[in-house]
Amino acid sequence: MTVSVKYQNRKKKVVTVIGGGTGTFVVLSGLKAYPLDLGVIVNVMDSGGSTGKLRDQLGVLPPGDLRQCLVALSEAPNLWRKLFLYRFDAGDLKGYNFGNLFLTALEKISHSYPDVIKTASFVLKIKGKVIPATYKKTNLCAQYSDGEVLRREHYIDENINTKKKIIRVFLEPKVKANPDALKRLEKSDYIIVGPGDLFTSIFPVVLVGGVKKAIGSSKAKIIYNMNLMTKVGQTTDYKASDHLREFKKYIGREPNYVIINNGRIPKGILKWYQDNKEKPVSNDLAKTNFDGKIIVADVVDDKQYRQSASDSVKRSVLRHSSTKLTKIITKIIYA
Amino acid sequence: MTVSVKYQNRKKKVVTVIGGGTGTFVVLSGLKAYPLDLGVIVNVMDSGGSTGKLRDQLGVLPPGDLRQCLVALSEAPNLWRKLFLYRFDAGDLKGYNFGNLFLTALEKISHSYPDVIKTASFVLKIKGKVIPATYKKTNLCAQYSDGEVLRREHYIDENINTKKKIIRVFLEPKVKANPDALKRLEKSDYIIVGPGDLFTSIFPVVLVGGVKKAIGSSKAKIIYNMNLMTKVGQTTDYKASDHLREFKKYIGREPNYVIINNGRIPKGILKWYQDNKEKPVSNDLAKTNFDGKIIVADVVDDKQYRQSASDSVKRSVLRHSSTKLTKIITKIIYA
Repeated sequence: MTVSVKYQNRKKKVVTVIGGGTGTFVVLSGLKAYPLDLGVIVNVMDSGGSTGKLRDQLGVLPPGDLRQCLVALSEAPNLWRKLFLYRFDAGDLKGYNFGNLFLTALEKISHSYPDVIKTASFVLKIKGKVIPATYKKTNLCAQYSDGEVLRREHYIDENINTKKKIIRVFLEPKVKANPDALKRLEKSDYIIVGPGDLFTSIFPVVLVGGVKKAIGSSKAKIIYNMNLMTKVGQTTDYKASDHLREFKKYIGREPNYVIINNGRIPKGILKWYQDNKEKPVSNDLAKTNFDGKIIVADVVDDKQYRQSASDSVKRSVLRHSSTKLTKIITKIIYA
Repeated sequence: MTVSVKYQNRKKKVVTVIGGGTGTFVVLSGLKAYPLDLGVIVNVMDSGGSTGKLRDQLGVLPPGDLRQCLVALSEAPNLWRKLFLYRFDAGDLKGYNFGNLFLTALEKISHSYPDVIKTASFVLKIKGKVIPATYKKTNLCAQYSDGEVLRREHYIDENINTKKKIIRVFLEPKVKANPDALKRLEKSDYIIVGPGDLFTSIFPVVLVGGVKKAIGSSKAKIIYNMNLMTKVGQTTDYKASDHLREFKKYIGREPNYVIINNGRIPKGILKWYQDNKEKPVSNDLAKTNFDGKIIVADVVDDKQYRQSASDSVKRSVLRHSSTKLTKIITKIIYA
């Protein structure tokens, strides 16, 4: 992407993204082309797929979300990025992602986790900073309306029982934040939240001890990219106002901007979601007393993403368009 | 290693090492400090350990020996070399070497194997050239005195029956050499053979179609680093003259120089070998009509190497000293 010269000579804004999944990948990939002081605070509570196995079998910090963020910010040749996203498709290694193996082996031979990030950032020539929310190992837990508690992120992620409503999510054990994450939040000009699963991608970051407080005391403006679709078993039937209510509850502040989609979602994709009991998030924000700015725009990527056969984790087939979303976000930042 | 200034201004000699195992690692690690046009022609017939599994399960060229040579020639920071030698020690990945996974994933996403070598060489900042003997997949086979034929390198490697004598080794299917390997041999000033298992590390290279002929027509002088110890089931009870006989049979020429050890081998190590029915190669070359130069010297590395618990392949616990051997080889080359 070519960036207009008008951005080049300004003081770089400090922009911090929160999350870790596919949505974060989309935002980071778009923003890295701009002259920003860009960083991402990544959740490390993933317990599913090959990441979960590496975590359990080898005792490492779950690498999956960190790897996705590193690749998103990478300015290395395409082959290199492709390598880090490569998933073995047969034999003992079936389903293992190479980038995850890289981070795992690196953790095993490094003195500290900051060294792992430093080496991986160097190798992938990343622009910006990838910051784990914490260096401590912990599990995401969810308590449901029927009293049941699910422990470990992937059990929560895999629950498709629409009757079970999440009452609250929490971390077990409680862990303290990586001090670099707190410092980063405090000096940020903008904090970007989402798109991403609220309970399993975004809130795990803010549940880490100190993060909510740091966001609360930060002068940063918050941009919230509302999800395109509901998520079965987590945000079943959620409207935009429901997302916002939970956002405020966990993050402690209202966003200054909400970007919400009004673009057409291709029929084939809608059908796929319907079959999974998921639907577009409807915009009912006018009925609320939200007093931030609501930006309604087409932010849909028309491409239907495919699920890799060797990938045991279910991924979104519909995504935000990196180009469309970046255009709106940068318009806010450079206003 | 600091290299005397006297070497710096000469035309670089073309030096080509043949093999692939631990012995080749020792030679390459030592020689890379010198201003030579250094290259290695590597066997790709390995079928044991994690290399064999990757080959079988994912259909790749066996990465193990290539990886060892790449690391030997690497001038990347130590952490990086350590990573490529790292072996996972638990879970689904137990016994898999990271460097092998790297080459495997790279082969899966690259257009051709030369691209794999190019990328890996760049990443590891290697000095010199790593050249697979062939890009074709083939198996090493051995015919024994009792008529039995073992197919696949690791079965030959694992045979510890001292009654079975190897009559001949051959490749199945027959394969043609990588043209770069032949060109390299033809323009070499020196070809270095060994140390290494004759039948499973060195001869697999010269069995590739065209290699023996290229060595025969090359003006290169051949330096043969005689093994320190016999190898059970392969060179059981071999004296130096037996090694030389087989050398001539498979390589087609006599070496111009043979370097043979007279250094003391520590008792503890000798005991380890005795328990495996292996012993020092005794020097009976004076009794032969070999008319090349025999260099008798202490080339022993006193350290006893340990077997990694997660490594399913048996490795030598006694090795040539890289420093001692390099000193002798460079004295020949720069004479």
